[in-house]
Amino acid sequence: MNFEDLIQDVYQKIEKLEGQGETASYIPELAKVDPSNFGVHISTMNGDNYGAGNYNDKFSIQSIAKVLSLILAYRILDHKIWERVGVEPSGTAFNSLVQLESDRGIPRNPFLNAGAIVVCDILLSNLEHPKQEFLDFVRSISNTTTIDYSKKIARSEKEVGYRNVALCNYIKSFGQIENEPTDVLDFYYDVCSLEMSCKDLSELFLFLANDGSDIKSNKSVLNERQSKRVNALMQTCGFYDESGEFAFKVGLPGKSGVGGGIIAIHPDQYAIAVWSPQLNKKGNSYKGMKFLEEFTTRSELSLF
Amino acid sequence: MNFEDLIQDVYQKIEKLEGQGETASYIPELAKVDPSNFGVHISTMNGDNYGAGNYNDKFSIQSIAKVLSLILAYRILDHKIWERVGVEPSGTAFNSLVQLESDRGIPRNPFLNAGAIVVCDILLSNLEHPKQEFLDFVRSISNTTTIDYSKKIARSEKEVGYRNVALCNYIKSFGQIENEPTDVLDFYYDVCSLEMSCKDLSELFLFLANDGSDIKSNKSVLNERQSKRVNALMQTCGFYDESGEFAFKVGLPGKSGVGGGIIAIHPDQYAIAVWSPQLNKKGNSYKGMKFLEEFTTRSELSLF
Amino acid sequence: MNFEDLIQDVYQKIEKLEGQGETASYIPELAKVDPSNFGVHISTMNGDNYGAGNYNDKFSIQSIAKVLSLILAYRILDHKIWERVGVEPSGTAFNSLVQLESDRGIPRNPFLNAGAIVVCDILLSNLEHPKQEFLDFVRSISNTTTIDYSKKIARSEKEVGYRNVALCNYIKSFGQIENEPTDVLDFYYDVCSLEMSCKDLSELFLFLANDGSDIKSNKSVLNERQSKRVNALMQTCGFYDESGEFAFKVGLPGKSGVGGGIIAIHPDQYAIAVWSPQLNKKGNSYKGMKFLEEFTTRSELSLF
Amino acid sequence: MNFEDLIQDVYQKIEKLEGQGETASYIPELAKVDPSNFGVHISTMNGDNYGAGNYNDKFSIQSIAKVLSLILAYRILDHKIWERVGVEPSGTAFNSLVQLESDRGIPRNPFLNAGAIVVCDILLSNLEHPKQEFLDFVRSISNTTTIDYSKKIARSEKEVGYRNVALCNYIKSFGQIENEPTDVLDFYYDVCSLEMSCKDLSELFLFLANDGSDIKSNKSVLNERQSKRVNALMQTCGFYDESGEFAFKVGLPGKSGVGGGIIAIHPDQYAIAVWSPQLNKKGNSYKGMKFLEEFTTRSELSLF
Repeated sequence: MNFEDLIQDVYQKIEKLEGQGETASYIPELAKVDPSNFGVHISTMNGDNYGAGNYNDKFSIQSIAKVLSLILAYRILDHKIWERVGVEPSGTAFNSLVQLESDRGIPRNPFLNAGAIVVCDILLSNLEHPKQEFLDFVRSISNTTTIDYSKKIARSEKEVGYRNVALCNYIKSFGQIENEPTDVLDFYYDVCSLEMSCKDLSELFLFLANDGSDIKSNKSVLNERQSKRVNALMQTCGFYDESGEFAFKVGLPGKSGVGGGIIAIHPDQYAIAVWSPQLNKKGNSYKGMKFLEEFTTRSELSLF
Repeated sequence: MNFEDLIQDVYQKIEKLEGQGETASYIPELAKVDPSNFGVHISTMNGDNYGAGNYNDKFSIQSIAKVLSLILAYRILDHKIWERVGVEPSGTAFNSLVQLESDRGIPRNPFLNAGAIVVCDILLSNLEHPKQEFLDFVRSISNTTTIDYSKKIARSEKEVGYRNVALCNYIKSFGQIENEPTDVLDFYYDVCSLEMSCKDLSELFLFLANDGSDIKSNKSVLNERQSKRVNALMQTCGFYDESGEFAFKVGLPGKSGVGGGIIAIHPDQYAIAVWSPQLNKKGNSYKGMKFLEEFTTRSELSLF
Repeated sequence: MNFEDLIQDVYQKIEKLEGQGETASYIPELAKVDPSNFGVHISTMNGDNYGAGNYNDKFSIQSIAKVLSLILAYRILDHKIWERVGVEPSGTAFNSLVQLESDRGIPRNPFLNAGAIVVCDILLSNLEHPKQEFLDFVRSISNTTTIDYSKKIARSEKEVGYRNVALCNYIKSFGQIENEPTDVLDFYYDVCSLEMSCKDLSELFLFLANDGSDIKSNKSVLNERQSKRVNALMQTCGFYDESGEFAFKVGLPGKSGVGGGIIAIHPDQYAIAVWSPQLNKKGNSYKGMKFLEEFTTRSELSLF
Repeated sequence: MNFEDLIQDVYQKIEKLEGQGETASYIPELAKVDPSNFGVHISTMNGDNYGAGNYNDKFSIQSIAKVLSLILAYRILDHKIWERVGVEPSGTAFNSLVQLESDRGIPRNPFLNAGAIVVCDILLSNLEHPKQEFLDFVRSISNTTTIDYSKKIARSEKEVGYRNVALCNYIKSFGQIENEPTDVLDFYYDVCSLEMSCKDLSELFLFLANDGSDIKSNKSVLNERQSKRVNALMQTCGFYDESGEFAFKVGLPGKSGVGGGIIAIHPDQYAIAVWSPQLNKKGNSYKGMKFLEEFTTRSELSLF
């Protein structure tokens, strides 16, 4: 069965699953999204593109954007970035503050909120117009000019972001944030408010399946070593408390967001994006996880 | 360059690296091992076998044995094993006791000492002669009768194993150990005292590159799903506090032991074992890590 | 109202309180004790003694014995004892293991299980026949020869003491236990198994109201400074998670045990012992706390 | 020896102690204070007042003000205040964030920063003009109109208060702060910036030695029960990580501040204030502790 048929087939099967889970409730704007949305899009190294369902609708990519901010900061600092943030999985969320204490303000990895906040601080220190330059960067690697921030989402998240204020100021108290916490968090909320479609995402992330280079222009976004690092990080830390489970069930490097989106990379093969806003107990898209599990099992393209 | 030449080439390069790190010092018997030992062996799906250096010398595989005890327990309980032990990375060692407290005695994964102790408890409850049956099982999947426990090592580890006694009794206090802690730990020390050569290891673990089945007899050790799970666990949790680093540098599922051994699996391709007793600061073989990094980079067979 | 009348009056009022709480259930032998037992006894500096209810019945004093073992060890090591165990309150039980980790095996105070285990280790290192010598010491300061260990209670506690085994071995792993954990714990269980009556307790502890000296013979058990230290420790750490509450409600230095006993000291005035086996949620005697609160309020002899 | 002579005598002895410790360095304005300052003042129930050294100079009372904000909030909410903040000692500072996590935003006691922040939140919710009303309250119980906030100190502390921002927002994320964190902290910094002399302090706090009532007017600031509670809290939690040590060495309820001030209460006898800006390793006044230890030992007026 080719990818196109497989996508359709699995899509139809998973679509029928009874609705499970809730949309993210802690961000008021996200709670309003129609829970029945479900979209999938794959972009392959051969240049093929297939989508199903709401694959062209834009949604809040939330934490998936942490990969994009990491990539930009990584381009700037190269390996020196690892002096500010670690590369190891973190265990439970519960440990996050304890670890910041024992590690003196160095977050365990860039996909934790604490780590992504440090990455935003790095960008603030190194870019003249961080908000615009980050958006330009994302648009440039996606070859899409329609990608944009959502002011509503950013504001909505900021209004309830007490824990992020706590994290950022706690790290600052160890001297590991260079800018004013308010500025760092404003930028952080902008980054997380990016809206893209499944199509945008799979096309944008395809370079990570291609050793860091854009598949059409062959221009390097990251060098091969950096690209491998980002994939390895997504493999071990991309799914919060469910990273081990995702490694087993799907077997690909990936990253999820509380907006219900998931991006996954099969090195040398494809990038695939899924979106369904209902979340399982661990905060990852319920149908998204199910789709990718079924898809990799049937395509026998898990890494393991 | 073929595997044989590549192995030789990388071996010679890494062998020259100046000695770094110490042999494991907390277990008196391990501290006596000659630090200059260095061996490598690969077994491929095509049936090829190549070795270099001390690949035929037996050494204490230590925590690598935790994969073997897990496999045997997994065969017995299948997915019910995950009611007793988790599948997620653990963060720092520091958290291990805090997590046991908040998780009421359920270790985060079977490769932590706490998790491996629970696996030993499972085997004790399910086997009539656990020590003999476990050895028979290991010999049977390795097709080698020369593999054996080391009484000296087991005794040496037991004598200083206060932290393991603490872990086992702490878990027992949550009702998550069924047998007497003394019996569980005696068996645990036996398991960790297994001695094998790099050749033994790569031949034994090749079935994990083959979806769980022995390559010659085609007999199933684990089913495909179970085999995928074990590989995913090695990918995310196999190297203590350096699992993320190993995923990046080597990009393969693997497991290390404080005896200086490392096993790594490339699904559908090969299993490779390395041994050099000098450990880096995280407790993994210094030369072993270097060798595998260079080997996968040059063979371009990292998963990422 | 004199002490005698006040004791009778308060006793009758508290006795009528409807039974609340359970007897300690984790030690099978303690669970068998008749929950309706209720006794009180006061010994004053003037040499007066008054009792009410079951004041002459012996019961398991449990953690109250931790004060006695501390006193004997304090006599031996004087202030050097504080190199092995701290003098500060510990916060929640939850923190106990985390603190042992960050404090490298030094318990926060001698009334935590961890601290009392270290005190027992000290006695084991410094006495030839610790079990007999400790009993002799207790008998000598109480002027009673009928005080003895309970083999049944010691055995009952040992059988379920997995958490204590964990604590002792964990401390040992930091090099802060000198003897074999099994020997330390056997002695610890003996110490906690001491049986006394309220009368025994109030007479025995009266020397702490008298700057450390026996009231009749004027022989010094502790010097004045040591006596002050023990009282201060009971004030800040004597009631587990309810030390602050006890300081407020009763306002005296004191120590409770899960057998339902409480001893409290009013410096320069008296020692008073209460016993009622039903425990409140924090593990302290329900009626014992109520009695002492009412007694100190009406005698206006709280320290605050 | 009467109090006057004893104060003079001990003052002269302690004054000669070689300077030890540093002035608080984390608040720039506090670091500028002359470290040689040393003052003492006692106010007794008999109406006597004696001072020595810089007893009339005003200094930043810092955390001593946490007792005053607690008292005002306690007057407003009475025992309902304990639904928002606990009454137990906290163990190490290290645990503070872990405990907030496990206790869902309820600080262990009102003298921790976290607890004092919650108390400020309560005042903000219950007063119309919190800043003015709190100052009026303090002036009214001290019968002094010269007490005031220091804008400089408040601003200086705010500029480096990242950890307090973290604490306040963390508690807010559990829903346990009602007002905006910025407002709560602004008020908190004002409260801590109060400046008083030793004379002001001992006169102000004397009511806590008098069961809660002003000694001259006999007007009740707190009722007897509330007064006992505040004293008990100072006894068990007043000196951070050195509360047990202070209970032993001084044996009185008390509270210290990083400005180098200490207030201590001897119920039914006196209130005494000491000030010397050099701090010991635990953050309490070095000479202040020494003075009180010597004073209570020689006056034999320790509680124990």
